[in-house]
Amino acid sequence: MINDSRNLTLLTDFYELTMMRGYLNVDMADRIVVFDLFYRRNPSGNGYAIAAGLEQAVEYIRELHFSDEDIAYLKGMGCFDAGFLNALKKFRFTGDLWAVPEGTVVFPHEPLLKVKAPIFQAQLLETALLTIINHQSLIATKAARVCQAAQGDPVMEFGLRRAQGPDAGVYGSRAAFIGGCTATSDVLAGKMFGIPVRGTHAHSWVMSFESELEAFRAYAKIFPQACVLLVDTYDTVRSGVPNAIAVFKEMREAGVPLRGYGIRLDSGDLAYISKMARKMLDAEGFTDAVISASSDLDENLIAQLKIQGAKITLWGVGTNLITSMDCPAFGGVYKLAAEMGENGELTAKIKLSENPEKVTNPGDKKIVRLYDREYGKFKADLIALADERFDPSEDLTVFDPLATWKSMTLRAGTYTPRELLTPVFIKGGCVYDLPKAAAIQSYRETEMDTLWDEHKRLSNPQIAYVDLSQRLYDLKQEMIRKTRGLK
Amino acid sequence: MINDSRNLTLLTDFYELTMMRGYLNVDMADRIVVFDLFYRRNPSGNGYAIAAGLEQAVEYIRELHFSDEDIAYLKGMGCFDAGFLNALKKFRFTGDLWAVPEGTVVFPHEPLLKVKAPIFQAQLLETALLTIINHQSLIATKAARVCQAAQGDPVMEFGLRRAQGPDAGVYGSRAAFIGGCTATSDVLAGKMFGIPVRGTHAHSWVMSFESELEAFRAYAKIFPQACVLLVDTYDTVRSGVPNAIAVFKEMREAGVPLRGYGIRLDSGDLAYISKMARKMLDAEGFTDAVISASSDLDENLIAQLKIQGAKITLWGVGTNLITSMDCPAFGGVYKLAAEMGENGELTAKIKLSENPEKVTNPGDKKIVRLYDREYGKFKADLIALADERFDPSEDLTVFDPLATWKSMTLRAGTYTPRELLTPVFIKGGCVYDLPKAAAIQSYRETEMDTLWDEHKRLSNPQIAYVDLSQRLYDLKQEMIRKTRGLK
Repeated sequence: MINDSRNLTLLTDFYELTMMRGYLNVDMADRIVVFDLFYRRNPSGNGYAIAAGLEQAVEYIRELHFSDEDIAYLKGMGCFDAGFLNALKKFRFTGDLWAVPEGTVVFPHEPLLKVKAPIFQAQLLETALLTIINHQSLIATKAARVCQAAQGDPVMEFGLRRAQGPDAGVYGSRAAFIGGCTATSDVLAGKMFGIPVRGTHAHSWVMSFESELEAFRAYAKIFPQACVLLVDTYDTVRSGVPNAIAVFKEMREAGVPLRGYGIRLDSGDLAYISKMARKMLDAEGFTDAVISASSDLDENLIAQLKIQGAKITLWGVGTNLITSMDCPAFGGVYKLAAEMGENGELTAKIKLSENPEKVTNPGDKKIVRLYDREYGKFKADLIALADERFDPSEDLTVFDPLATWKSMTLRAGTYTPRELLTPVFIKGGCVYDLPKAAAIQSYRETEMDTLWDEHKRLSNPQIAYVDLSQRLYDLKQEMIRKTRGLK
Repeated sequence: MINDSRNLTLLTDFYELTMMRGYLNVDMADRIVVFDLFYRRNPSGNGYAIAAGLEQAVEYIRELHFSDEDIAYLKGMGCFDAGFLNALKKFRFTGDLWAVPEGTVVFPHEPLLKVKAPIFQAQLLETALLTIINHQSLIATKAARVCQAAQGDPVMEFGLRRAQGPDAGVYGSRAAFIGGCTATSDVLAGKMFGIPVRGTHAHSWVMSFESELEAFRAYAKIFPQACVLLVDTYDTVRSGVPNAIAVFKEMREAGVPLRGYGIRLDSGDLAYISKMARKMLDAEGFTDAVISASSDLDENLIAQLKIQGAKITLWGVGTNLITSMDCPAFGGVYKLAAEMGENGELTAKIKLSENPEKVTNPGDKKIVRLYDREYGKFKADLIALADERFDPSEDLTVFDPLATWKSMTLRAGTYTPRELLTPVFIKGGCVYDLPKAAAIQSYRETEMDTLWDEHKRLSNPQIAYVDLSQRLYDLKQEMIRKTRGLK
């Protein structure tokens, strides 16, 4: 969190607290349950999502405690008894939590996090875990789309001023970095997560001088390194680019080494203007001058500009990235999957819905990713029960859980299984080494390399197979029949 | 801020710092400038916006200081000299800031905030002020739309789990309350801002019991007051509502006073199901049972459900409100409007654009709202120069600044002028008493009452007149001609 010791314990929907009181009152508070955090649809019509936010989820859980002030506030609400408030005073997380590592490519219905804990604790975690994971997974996924469109060009995250509050800026910047952005404009995010920070000057700098040329000259004198000049304050083609060229010439004549220098376009038709600017720069020998752009960009506009041969090689993406403009919410949910009976055994739980896709997957589960052994590429994901084992020296038939006739048999020796859920907390203790943001970014790149291009298409991608193991499928069907009173 | 002492000084785009260093190096750091924070288009096609976020902006400015750790981080970047870092160590805000009070109805192009300070300071404030004001004004405006659609029914903000990070939840909740919501599910927002907090139980409560009836019974026993039962875990009409009615009967028979009780619908066709549920509840004499609903609601769906006679009187709005789904960014910008010359006088500055609506309004300005004296209703806003005076005992002709032939003369004695910008900081000291969120909410209600219904229509509203004073208009035209080299 922005302040490491920020106590977010009350960052919860009120009903978590009323239910906690309820569980305590009916003597169910200590019952061990399993909750899954999963989502149902990839954002922005994408073919996958990038899991993100685990570090902040871990910090949230570590800091969980009700302060005296929190207790006093809750007491003042008049609907909580002393026994409950006392239990809150002693509250700490003593359960287990598994999660897919940040930067993992994930698909709908897969548990990104799994909490196994007394229901008194597991219930409290719901809201904040959703807030944190939903937000960062959303922005990481959007960033992956934008970077995909940029085809390897560096993309900078420039959205802080349009972010939905300070956290959205800082953690959004972190998520964008995980998703593939190379830098951010957000200094605080840079400091907190070691993200490279970039930026040069605004229109106000130019307007503060008598002329654009003087403004550029002054800037170049102070920042001769990576001197990128914003050229659209008055007239990009007639004034901005010629003045930038004049200053670059002066630098060259003065023997200043020109490195990482160039111009930034922030308005106008970026395809046309970037081509004009490229010609003007090249004509004066500034063939290595960078042309960067930052004007209401998103993955679709970048893709279009690429098609039209825009001469932009560095992209600054703001509002549309930091808010995930076309899809500003990641629909993660947190659902009860199992509970422990008197006998100490877990019983699966299911939530029905008229919509078959909204029926939850019951039981204590895991995700097994199946790779093609020859190419290392993604074949299918299996959601399975936690105690299932898959032996790659045996054939494995997987099938679509809704249209079961769509099946595929992976021949023995041709596939490699990998389990995605990793233990993060065991008995309340954190057992997971949180990687740095840069390591997560690298891991995400290797993750992306396992996908086929068809999964990565920005529009109408090939849907990745996410199947249920035969045992989980059978359990689910049986529970549906039972709940509906069928045989 | 969530933690009062949170230091957001580095919550800034990097280019503010490079420019600050630049201004220091060219001996311009102390030059007094005026920056306006304004926006160009109402979100969601609305006819107005609600200004919000000033309290957090004030806290941000009060806490502004570069810690040793901040300085060390910046030093490590390798592009800042010792003189600049020393200046940062001593940094504090010594300037003036005016703002429209939170909850004010505002329109495009009006300065919501105006900063007059040495450019070294005014430049730093840009990013964080935009982040804070953009976010809260966005959500307050969205909430006003949702509440407008609910036609006086209470609306609860339920979006925390889909908010873009913790701040987006907490400050979004505050903004939604300012915009007209009566309560929130977010306990931390309740604690921080005194917002009423609401919520009962989730599907997981029902699933934790052997049967829905037992779950309802247990809940009602623990929370006999405001007992609102979620009835859609299994089958709303066949199971949920009958079980809720059974429990309400037991309560009635046991002599438990039934107050604020009822049911919550969270799926299915809300028009159909609410009418069914109303009939079922009424038939058993529970005519005062509340029917609340919370399923992907927004202002458009609420308006449609109202038209179809849905029997819902309490609305819980989540994702679409907390993210302002259809328009997740408020396009506030921060532009240089004037600077002080050697002679101590302010000189107006202008930023041109090919798009006439994007040409900034130059000079040190104010907003004068003109009301109809008889009805107290909004007539027009005038953006004027700060030293202009308007005498309501004289005729006043106002005109559209783009289509100047659209004009209107307010006759002497028929209008009342009111200035909207209030001093908040003077010479670095806060001179403004920050009102509580509840007071801001009430003020917003009186603000809304000054609008005509035509301005409040959710789609294609009547555009409020925002004109320039004759003096400001003339100044702007002259500056445009001069900058373009015309006579």
